[in-house]
Amino acid sequence: MILTVKEIAERIGGAVDGDGSAEISAVAGLEEARPGDLSFCKDPKHVKAVAGTKATALILPETWFEPFPCAAAIRVAAPDEACMAAAAIFAPPAPVRAPGIHPTAIVAENVSIGRNVHIGPYTVIERGATIGDGCTIEAQVYIGEDCRIGDGCHIYPQTTLREGTVLGKRVILHCGVRIGGDGYGYTHEVSPDGKISISKIPQLGIVELGDDVEVGSNTTIDRARLGRTKVGACTKIDNLVQVAHNVQIGSCSGLIAQCGVAGSAHIGSGVLIWAQAGISGHIHVNDRAQVGPQAGVPQDVPAGSYVIGTPAGSLRDVAAIALAPKAISRLRADVKELKKKIGG
Amino acid sequence: MILTVKEIAERIGGAVDGDGSAEISAVAGLEEARPGDLSFCKDPKHVKAVAGTKATALILPETWFEPFPCAAAIRVAAPDEACMAAAAIFAPPAPVRAPGIHPTAIVAENVSIGRNVHIGPYTVIERGATIGDGCTIEAQVYIGEDCRIGDGCHIYPQTTLREGTVLGKRVILHCGVRIGGDGYGYTHEVSPDGKISISKIPQLGIVELGDDVEVGSNTTIDRARLGRTKVGACTKIDNLVQVAHNVQIGSCSGLIAQCGVAGSAHIGSGVLIWAQAGISGHIHVNDRAQVGPQAGVPQDVPAGSYVIGTPAGSLRDVAAIALAPKAISRLRADVKELKKKIGG
Amino acid sequence: MILTVKEIAERIGGAVDGDGSAEISAVAGLEEARPGDLSFCKDPKHVKAVAGTKATALILPETWFEPFPCAAAIRVAAPDEACMAAAAIFAPPAPVRAPGIHPTAIVAENVSIGRNVHIGPYTVIERGATIGDGCTIEAQVYIGEDCRIGDGCHIYPQTTLREGTVLGKRVILHCGVRIGGDGYGYTHEVSPDGKISISKIPQLGIVELGDDVEVGSNTTIDRARLGRTKVGACTKIDNLVQVAHNVQIGSCSGLIAQCGVAGSAHIGSGVLIWAQAGISGHIHVNDRAQVGPQAGVPQDVPAGSYVIGTPAGSLRDVAAIALAPKAISRLRADVKELKKKIGG
Repeated sequence: MILTVKEIAERIGGAVDGDGSAEISAVAGLEEARPGDLSFCKDPKHVKAVAGTKATALILPETWFEPFPCAAAIRVAAPDEACMAAAAIFAPPAPVRAPGIHPTAIVAENVSIGRNVHIGPYTVIERGATIGDGCTIEAQVYIGEDCRIGDGCHIYPQTTLREGTVLGKRVILHCGVRIGGDGYGYTHEVSPDGKISISKIPQLGIVELGDDVEVGSNTTIDRARLGRTKVGACTKIDNLVQVAHNVQIGSCSGLIAQCGVAGSAHIGSGVLIWAQAGISGHIHVNDRAQVGPQAGVPQDVPAGSYVIGTPAGSLRDVAAIALAPKAISRLRADVKELKKKIGG
Repeated sequence: MILTVKEIAERIGGAVDGDGSAEISAVAGLEEARPGDLSFCKDPKHVKAVAGTKATALILPETWFEPFPCAAAIRVAAPDEACMAAAAIFAPPAPVRAPGIHPTAIVAENVSIGRNVHIGPYTVIERGATIGDGCTIEAQVYIGEDCRIGDGCHIYPQTTLREGTVLGKRVILHCGVRIGGDGYGYTHEVSPDGKISISKIPQLGIVELGDDVEVGSNTTIDRARLGRTKVGACTKIDNLVQVAHNVQIGSCSGLIAQCGVAGSAHIGSGVLIWAQAGISGHIHVNDRAQVGPQAGVPQDVPAGSYVIGTPAGSLRDVAAIALAPKAISRLRADVKELKKKIGG
Repeated sequence: MILTVKEIAERIGGAVDGDGSAEISAVAGLEEARPGDLSFCKDPKHVKAVAGTKATALILPETWFEPFPCAAAIRVAAPDEACMAAAAIFAPPAPVRAPGIHPTAIVAENVSIGRNVHIGPYTVIERGATIGDGCTIEAQVYIGEDCRIGDGCHIYPQTTLREGTVLGKRVILHCGVRIGGDGYGYTHEVSPDGKISISKIPQLGIVELGDDVEVGSNTTIDRARLGRTKVGACTKIDNLVQVAHNVQIGSCSGLIAQCGVAGSAHIGSGVLIWAQAGISGHIHVNDRAQVGPQAGVPQDVPAGSYVIGTPAGSLRDVAAIALAPKAISRLRADVKELKKKIGG
């Protein structure tokens, strides 16, 4: 789609400053914008980024007095809202998933399906499953026996839910999510002659996700050994995250990309675990705590605290280690000085 | 399914203590149990956890004399066995995958299929593949040309095996496992005028997994450049693990979630690599060694040793670094004292 | 396939030294070779590895005078080329994907498909998509609305491209790749009574991959919040990598397994990010920089520099911390000595 700056200004409610006939085909950030893009800036702090942009036009606040290198600007009272409105014009339209079951979907006979449900091509739903009202189950999904999917869930293509999984309402699962895989559990026995034998511990539990949980692409959440691996309401999980068996996560927490939570750990509510951090098994990360990126957490984290580093401690602990070489250099100089004085 | 405490006690062989008519619908751990759950405790050390549980009933050893806040207990001689037996009653029944090829499975003409094999809907098996007796290949699986699958393997939905992959007997692949992807290999050339050209190095080898190997959800194991990427018998790999091209792993080793092994590394037998650890290319982690969580291992690890940290060293090395700030503070105080004495 | 050493020598152009009738069924590295394998060595430095090999035969340079424990050798002028030629003989033949649309592929009516395109079984292509000439789209792939796939792309099984994704020419996507998932973006509001409410920020942008990009198994690349998440021409991404929304990556860069790049970060051209490293959001890693394995990068990295550690610094910084315990020991001894002198 191509629109002129003037046409966009009319749609989002702004005043054209410059060449209103300039043509726009996309919206992008200042640094990545190309000719033909509309970009935006609301803060005079970013004068330099504005000066360097390749965008054809900008959305700017009415109070912007700095120069800009573009063919035109659209001046608005509320740049954030205007920008989202402009982006929505050019965004690929959200695909429509009309209610109905695709003829190639294989749905077992006793599956219960609510009203206004979309089930896409080549999706397989096994016996005993329940799909709530208004769900969108896209193409090539696998839903195992006796899964219960609440109202309004959206399951993207190529996602698997093993048997017995329970989803609350409005849960979003992105492509490649794996719910309910067997937890990693084995018994090792070493016989008197040193021979190792390894047996699989049955993983008899399930996974339960609360209302409004969202799970990112290719994330894995294992079924409990006994009972339930649980993710509380409104918790948001990013891509490539590992949640091991029997983990319990509270509500409104966030798990950022590539972090991992080991078996039976308890994560409270309002907790934020940053990217690539790892939480050891059986420990408690209490409410509103934050775990920094790449931190390795071997023991309980008090409510509301921030930990970072491996093994995780306070920011002060991490800084003290980072500054150790400098402190050592200074001490070395002092000691040298002392030696000189004494030796002299 | 709902059973009374009395009914469960009869099935698992125990004596009811309290209200045998209390109703139970699931088994769960002490901390995560809810009303309606049966939980369990075998160790008087956990008196506090028992006191705080919300379970409706507990499985307890006959020798438990502490109070418990539940409607009933089932007293048994062997709590572990009783608990697993109770859990099995409520567990989602393991789905039955009866022998047979689903009519929507696409199996090339010259594929050899053993006896009692299940092949699920929308699975694709390419020419020249061999499937052993008693295999379960679930829905939406992809098995490439000339793969050889041993007897009794279980391949969960949405798993891919690229051409030439060899699985031993009783191998388990969980959902989203990727076997035989091209290894990461390129040649870089910089021409005299500074232009970089990058060419792909053909990845001509295969992947071979030994008997009783289990691979967790969304784990990736790349094909060798030449020869075979190999995982030895009985080695267990968790979720989201990366095994690069030409890696050689021995038998009975364990690779925990999100760890990674770079190209051509050798991992011995009985080795344990903990979560999020990374093993550099071409090095040897020898038999029975353990690599701690998040460790980064740049060089060979001797047999039977434990390494931790990045770059990985002994626990003592890691502790020495963690304690450096304290040691520095003490030294600083000493030096200050000395200065005073000398200066005074 | 089984060939004699003599037959192989004839095919690759070499002279047999030893038993030309020895039978070979595969090519493998010196250390992992088994009886029946052909291995290779070009460098006299590896005398020890040659002495320990279990290979039945070796490819050796004409100038090799050391002993070898194999039934035969094939002596050649150019061992590298000879070895690749021998490997190609035994490699599983690259599967043929003949042009044509499999009858089970579901291709929306207005999809534009170029010449000589292969579309595999159970693949789904939504309306408005464009597939260039000579593309191979394998089995069970999902391509969303309005995606544009350039000429000569190869998309392996069970890959998903969400709506609007743009691929350049000759892009390779390995199994399980997820392109265009929603970025991780939410607004948090805490009401005066302490109640948290979390809303999803619409992710309106797309993902754009340049010509000759290759993406490894189970890697995830999220769509932009606005504009485009962009990977430049010839950049190669390994397995299980996370590329967050609005990330901009230049050309000819490499992202090794399990590394992650947070939202809106800029990665230059010719950059190499090693395994398991993490790049914070909004920072710049400039051209030709290298980020070491497991490094955590919280701030901009200058062009051409090498950083390592968490928080990432120079190799010298990391070494200084690793050596701190030794330095402290030495200082402690000095201080003790001084105390003795003064106190005495």
